[in-house]
Amino acid sequence: MKITDWINKDLPEVVKSLEKNILSGFHIQTEEGLNMSGRNEIYAVLDEFLSVLFPGAYSKEKVALEELNFYLGDTLRHITFTLRKQIREVFEFHCDKSDCDECDCDEKAKTVCKEVIESLPNMRSILLEDVSAAHEGDPAARSLDEIVLSYPCIEAIATYRIAHALYLRKVPIIPRIMTERAHSRTGIDIHPGAHIGPRFFIDHGTGVVIGETTVIGRNVKIYQGVTLGAISPFDKDGTPRRDVKRHPTIEDDVIIYSNATILGGGTVIGKKAIIGGNTWITSSVAAGEVIFNNGKK
Amino acid sequence: MKITDWINKDLPEVVKSLEKNILSGFHIQTEEGLNMSGRNEIYAVLDEFLSVLFPGAYSKEKVALEELNFYLGDTLRHITFTLRKQIREVFEFHCDKSDCDECDCDEKAKTVCKEVIESLPNMRSILLEDVSAAHEGDPAARSLDEIVLSYPCIEAIATYRIAHALYLRKVPIIPRIMTERAHSRTGIDIHPGAHIGPRFFIDHGTGVVIGETTVIGRNVKIYQGVTLGAISPFDKDGTPRRDVKRHPTIEDDVIIYSNATILGGGTVIGKKAIIGGNTWITSSVAAGEVIFNNGKK
Amino acid sequence: MKITDWINKDLPEVVKSLEKNILSGFHIQTEEGLNMSGRNEIYAVLDEFLSVLFPGAYSKEKVALEELNFYLGDTLRHITFTLRKQIREVFEFHCDKSDCDECDCDEKAKTVCKEVIESLPNMRSILLEDVSAAHEGDPAARSLDEIVLSYPCIEAIATYRIAHALYLRKVPIIPRIMTERAHSRTGIDIHPGAHIGPRFFIDHGTGVVIGETTVIGRNVKIYQGVTLGAISPFDKDGTPRRDVKRHPTIEDDVIIYSNATILGGGTVIGKKAIIGGNTWITSSVAAGEVIFNNGKK
Amino acid sequence: MKITDWINKDLPEVVKSLEKNILSGFHIQTEEGLNMSGRNEIYAVLDEFLSVLFPGAYSKEKVALEELNFYLGDTLRHITFTLRKQIREVFEFHCDKSDCDECDCDEKAKTVCKEVIESLPNMRSILLEDVSAAHEGDPAARSLDEIVLSYPCIEAIATYRIAHALYLRKVPIIPRIMTERAHSRTGIDIHPGAHIGPRFFIDHGTGVVIGETTVIGRNVKIYQGVTLGAISPFDKDGTPRRDVKRHPTIEDDVIIYSNATILGGGTVIGKKAIIGGNTWITSSVAAGEVIFNNGKK
Amino acid sequence: MKITDWINKDLPEVVKSLEKNILSGFHIQTEEGLNMSGRNEIYAVLDEFLSVLFPGAYSKEKVALEELNFYLGDTLRHITFTLRKQIREVFEFHCDKSDCDECDCDEKAKTVCKEVIESLPNMRSILLEDVSAAHEGDPAARSLDEIVLSYPCIEAIATYRIAHALYLRKVPIIPRIMTERAHSRTGIDIHPGAHIGPRFFIDHGTGVVIGETTVIGRNVKIYQGVTLGAISPFDKDGTPRRDVKRHPTIEDDVIIYSNATILGGGTVIGKKAIIGGNTWITSSVAAGEVIFNNGKK
Amino acid sequence: MKITDWINKDLPEVVKSLEKNILSGFHIQTEEGLNMSGRNEIYAVLDEFLSVLFPGAYSKEKVALEELNFYLGDTLRHITFTLRKQIREVFEFHCDKSDCDECDCDEKAKTVCKEVIESLPNMRSILLEDVSAAHEGDPAARSLDEIVLSYPCIEAIATYRIAHALYLRKVPIIPRIMTERAHSRTGIDIHPGAHIGPRFFIDHGTGVVIGETTVIGRNVKIYQGVTLGAISPFDKDGTPRRDVKRHPTIEDDVIIYSNATILGGGTVIGKKAIIGGNTWITSSVAAGEVIFNNGKK
Repeated sequence: MKITDWINKDLPEVVKSLEKNILSGFHIQTEEGLNMSGRNEIYAVLDEFLSVLFPGAYSKEKVALEELNFYLGDTLRHITFTLRKQIREVFEFHCDKSDCDECDCDEKAKTVCKEVIESLPNMRSILLEDVSAAHEGDPAARSLDEIVLSYPCIEAIATYRIAHALYLRKVPIIPRIMTERAHSRTGIDIHPGAHIGPRFFIDHGTGVVIGETTVIGRNVKIYQGVTLGAISPFDKDGTPRRDVKRHPTIEDDVIIYSNATILGGGTVIGKKAIIGGNTWITSSVAAGEVIFNNGKK
Repeated sequence: MKITDWINKDLPEVVKSLEKNILSGFHIQTEEGLNMSGRNEIYAVLDEFLSVLFPGAYSKEKVALEELNFYLGDTLRHITFTLRKQIREVFEFHCDKSDCDECDCDEKAKTVCKEVIESLPNMRSILLEDVSAAHEGDPAARSLDEIVLSYPCIEAIATYRIAHALYLRKVPIIPRIMTERAHSRTGIDIHPGAHIGPRFFIDHGTGVVIGETTVIGRNVKIYQGVTLGAISPFDKDGTPRRDVKRHPTIEDDVIIYSNATILGGGTVIGKKAIIGGNTWITSSVAAGEVIFNNGKK
Repeated sequence: MKITDWINKDLPEVVKSLEKNILSGFHIQTEEGLNMSGRNEIYAVLDEFLSVLFPGAYSKEKVALEELNFYLGDTLRHITFTLRKQIREVFEFHCDKSDCDECDCDEKAKTVCKEVIESLPNMRSILLEDVSAAHEGDPAARSLDEIVLSYPCIEAIATYRIAHALYLRKVPIIPRIMTERAHSRTGIDIHPGAHIGPRFFIDHGTGVVIGETTVIGRNVKIYQGVTLGAISPFDKDGTPRRDVKRHPTIEDDVIIYSNATILGGGTVIGKKAIIGGNTWITSSVAAGEVIFNNGKK
Repeated sequence: MKITDWINKDLPEVVKSLEKNILSGFHIQTEEGLNMSGRNEIYAVLDEFLSVLFPGAYSKEKVALEELNFYLGDTLRHITFTLRKQIREVFEFHCDKSDCDECDCDEKAKTVCKEVIESLPNMRSILLEDVSAAHEGDPAARSLDEIVLSYPCIEAIATYRIAHALYLRKVPIIPRIMTERAHSRTGIDIHPGAHIGPRFFIDHGTGVVIGETTVIGRNVKIYQGVTLGAISPFDKDGTPRRDVKRHPTIEDDVIIYSNATILGGGTVIGKKAIIGGNTWITSSVAAGEVIFNNGKK
Repeated sequence: MKITDWINKDLPEVVKSLEKNILSGFHIQTEEGLNMSGRNEIYAVLDEFLSVLFPGAYSKEKVALEELNFYLGDTLRHITFTLRKQIREVFEFHCDKSDCDECDCDEKAKTVCKEVIESLPNMRSILLEDVSAAHEGDPAARSLDEIVLSYPCIEAIATYRIAHALYLRKVPIIPRIMTERAHSRTGIDIHPGAHIGPRFFIDHGTGVVIGETTVIGRNVKIYQGVTLGAISPFDKDGTPRRDVKRHPTIEDDVIIYSNATILGGGTVIGKKAIIGGNTWITSSVAAGEVIFNNGKK
Repeated sequence: MKITDWINKDLPEVVKSLEKNILSGFHIQTEEGLNMSGRNEIYAVLDEFLSVLFPGAYSKEKVALEELNFYLGDTLRHITFTLRKQIREVFEFHCDKSDCDECDCDEKAKTVCKEVIESLPNMRSILLEDVSAAHEGDPAARSLDEIVLSYPCIEAIATYRIAHALYLRKVPIIPRIMTERAHSRTGIDIHPGAHIGPRFFIDHGTGVVIGETTVIGRNVKIYQGVTLGAISPFDKDGTPRRDVKRHPTIEDDVIIYSNATILGGGTVIGKKAIIGGNTWITSSVAAGEVIFNNGKK
């Protein structure tokens, strides 16, 4: 059979079968799902957020000093416009449809959008603290600029801080799409629900996992391959443990070396503790303690 | 010496030297290699495959419900056209040249192309099972849509399932280029030769390695950093161990926690076994067993 | 308040605040920083370098054999032009400003640019040795072409070799931006300062970290998750340990299996030693020794 | 006043004033107008029509012979999809809104779209006659290819024939947008309502005007600057003369030289007549007559 | 000689020769000329002006009604930014260089830019009158929308009105570049210096020329090929007649049919006069008179 | 019938019919025609030619003075590469196929390409004379820059001079495609075969037609709508009059005002003659004569 014949005769059957499969019983393929903001648009907004936080590194083109005010204003206006639309769409998608004519999804989206943008100057100050911590924590770093321009943790942490601001305001899906973009680019997987203080530094970073209910204090440093996770996603009778604290608490000034695994919602790593590489920790560590992977302290 | 003089006098010598190096004795730079489909074109076909499987998440632009039939038909026709050409080129490239006028590379390419496209509806059903397993296995997941839109394992597994369909039909090089694209984006490295059952879920995923002869059953869940590898690529006298089973077998309903390493072609992890994090396994584990990294069960 | 009112009344205040934050006391946001070559331009030059080394795999479009000379000449001329400008800018940015009218930043940039381009034919010969080592070291590899087209280590090592040539000539920031691009794409983090011999092979690669003062001999093979790192970035009184050898030395013909961690500037892994997976090494290993992760040899 | 202050204080007033002006009482700026297919989309469809009629000259990229069937099918499918939507929009825009839920605009659009596409093979045959006539009529023409590739009359006439097929089916606005695109590019202004037979040739063409109710027979040749127009757009009491024949009739085998003006709905230029350059004709000319601009015959 | 040898040996001589030619004694090639805003950037600003005047027809993408305020604000801000820079550059280029540190080019540019933008709402009102006049004057016009979307005179007149606002404020070069863009697209050549009242309509338009010192009243209609020109560009002793009125005056309600030529700065066409097609007028015509091309009235 | 059914059932028949029509008996659709360089590629080369002649006006981006040498070299190298390929293709297309293995099309293409590029510096000098003539001839011109940046005659004449250089070397089709691009943009239609001396100026230009065998001396000025044409394309017995002089000769220092028509291969307009507007000339005019359109001198 000639390929053009197959295209005209058999392929339409494949199309119908696939179409039917897509249209049956799955949200992402229902009308609402297909109309929801696609990932590419959310990536574009995220890029704009990064570019107003660090124009020298993340803007698509160079921004001259004299153009800075204009550039920031223009980009923020564009974010306002697109982000509000995206947030409204995900709110409506998760809204109780029967009430939807009466719902306040648009109003809520507007409020969230404004609050997040208004939080940017403060967010940037915290990010500058993160950059300083990186500079002090890595002897290989030559300048603050080198860190902003080349350290993957800056993109990962900045993306997390933006996504966290949306997560706190109960925006569904979008925050997770944002942190997974950073995960893809940096190998650093920070759930937008985690609470992370300033002066946070992740060296190298590939393989780092920070779970949804993790709490991290000020001036914490971690290395590649560190997992801050849950002991098990299920409780004893197999029910998923949603909405409980499943991930550890890391207090101020802690250092966690590469490939350490720290698990459990009740696990607390005390202030100034040092966790050695390749360790496996499922219970709390007192402030100031030093744990090595041979079990010795 | 002025730079324009250097460009006109010295640079041509560099060019000649590099050209000679490129043209001497290396397939990728011979005429066949240069004419073989480049990676960008294969990435483009892969993106089209992903977009017909999950149009809401992977299509470049939004697809309205009323356009869905048209969109699927158009994209599949385009895949037919480009993929057939790419497969023919790699078949011819690996074909015995002396017989090439008589060879059936084009006919084979046509057949492979048609079979793979015809397998898509069934492939999508299996991917929906993978998505459901992710939803049930991760308490942080809020909806099926969130998983399709943001979980890296979906891109990695979907890409693997497409590449595997090509691998089974003995298409060289292309399947590997596809899975390495997913590896680059997700940190999950699945060889297209592995056999993986439905309801497969990888949480976080960075650092996962699944070797060519691995066999994975139904409803298996693994975490970041898990290696399913070979004990050694060589046998005792240093010969590469090609074409033998070098990687483990994982039976149904197994859970493997983060950074576990399971090695060896004869190693079988029995049904419903649980492998703890950071473990190092080189021999079989019985069905239902639970292994921790302190060696205790 | 209507969103357009908020845009016209409140948003300008956010802009001012953010602008002030950006303009105060941070190099990347000072005039010099903003004028310095952005990352996108450096990525573009890196892509051009990769495309003259492996035109079949990295050029944006196919290059016919008869066009090869023209393609190489044109691309190298373009590299000359843009790279020289980028190098001059980073030299000037780090130059002592008071002397800048007299400085020789442009002259130095020209020299570096010429030397690096002239080193390309030799660099390509070494990369071909790397490719051969990959082919011999991985039973799953079917052909040299498959390796160049799909193995992430090739992009990571080629990028490192280019960046290293710049690092040796004391170009700031740019080499690090280059290797971090490869890190983002491959999960392999090689500092441009490391010294690495020919026939270097990294299998799978995700999570590999190779520190700035690492020295690696000829014919070394390492697997995913291997860290060649520092014991601590600080000396006993907390001073960062810059400009000393902090990372290990790996002699010829060594194999290091997955997730092994080798730390310390004085740590030497002797010729033909084999380091097992998941091991934690902080002291030297004699030539020919074999170390397993249960502590036995 | 600083420009940024003016932007924040005065510019919003300009915006409001302009917005109000745009929203008040003008169809093109009402919701329907703004949602109507923009010109760029109609230009895109026109380009696709031209590219299936003359793929060698109007397709964006070269089409190999073996790809021709696929190319035509793909492009026509795309035209079907976008043109039907555009026609439906203009039908609805001109529809009596009160009846619109019951209206058959979509059904009509579908029918028009199918009929026009089905007429393409015949339309192409007529265009080939036009090309032949150009070849026979211009001694400077070296080949049929040169005519298709470089003679502006081919684009103008092909565009007219497509637009005329839509005009005959009472599609509003779109046909006129199409012929005005050709007018812009070629200086040849043919109203889509004119009736023009095969073997039509326009040499040079700039300044040619052919009015809505013009009738042109077979094998007619005209030169640059020729007007086939109305004597006056209004009747004696100033009412616009819509829906009557206002423009002349040109019978078979007539030649009209440059800058001749022929006016009036009752004016008939008889078979094989020759109209000299710079003439001004407002009454009929008998078959076979030759008119010069000095009034002599 | 091989072509690559010619490229390396002879071509550099051509380059040198051309470079020398470009650098010697010609403003457009001096540093100032090369830095002056290129035509493409001015075209881009012109497109933005047209898109805020008629968003339904000239914006690149559809603008929903709810986005209109945002769209206008954003586009006008962008115009402000780029146009001010372009005007400053042409002012400086024509400025007396010796005084340039003291010059007020930037301040003047800012003022011009603001005034022109502030004049847009009024300019749009006048353009709507032009559109209405077209609708009333052409029986073939079906709706106001059709006119905005397809009549070339709208683009020509709108472009002229924008350029005229700049010309009045003594901006060099830019107004002319703008009207020539419209000339290229529509065949209508209106000098930005002409004074043209509201309700101006040009039917068909190709070949129309309106000179720099032309004055046109209210409600004037002209057809294709009409020239409003100078008798001679030079006075009796061959001196160019700059800065005098060289082109005619057309009073209110005049109609000028196709290809009429009206010449001379003292020539006045009186109110309500009608000028027939193909006429040649070099002296005044009284109000209400009707002139035919056979000399009869 | 649903539209998707029509697409799958009826549309393929339309495709087949159109394909058959395209493939039957017409060069532009034969394999050679389809492989011949498309118009877009020739437009791209033409743009590159214009940009090396007037980089300030025709280059896509600004060219800094220090980049000029590099820019010219790079663009000319690119022209060499693409133009040679295009010329070879049209030579081969018109070559006697039976001899084609022996033909020297490639060698001839190489020679033409080199000669045309080598003629560019001289061509630019002549174009500068044209620009000067425009400046002296139009009182509305304010500067040489304004002329290069905005006068359509510059693009038309520069394009003609490039195309003429190819025409002289017997390159088929390409020269005509080039001049028709200028015709489309400027309304000025100059056949590439015409011979035109330096200091040539066309004011306004729309509607100008200059035939293939026209000869124009030095310092000639013409206005819009001027035709320099043939009396008839056929001789008395209807044979096309190819390869004879069919168009007039215009000697030095002649001025031809708007819409004048001058016809005939034997017609000579003598040195310093002035031809008035709207005149119709079919016989020679003596040197120094002045012709008005009322027949008086």
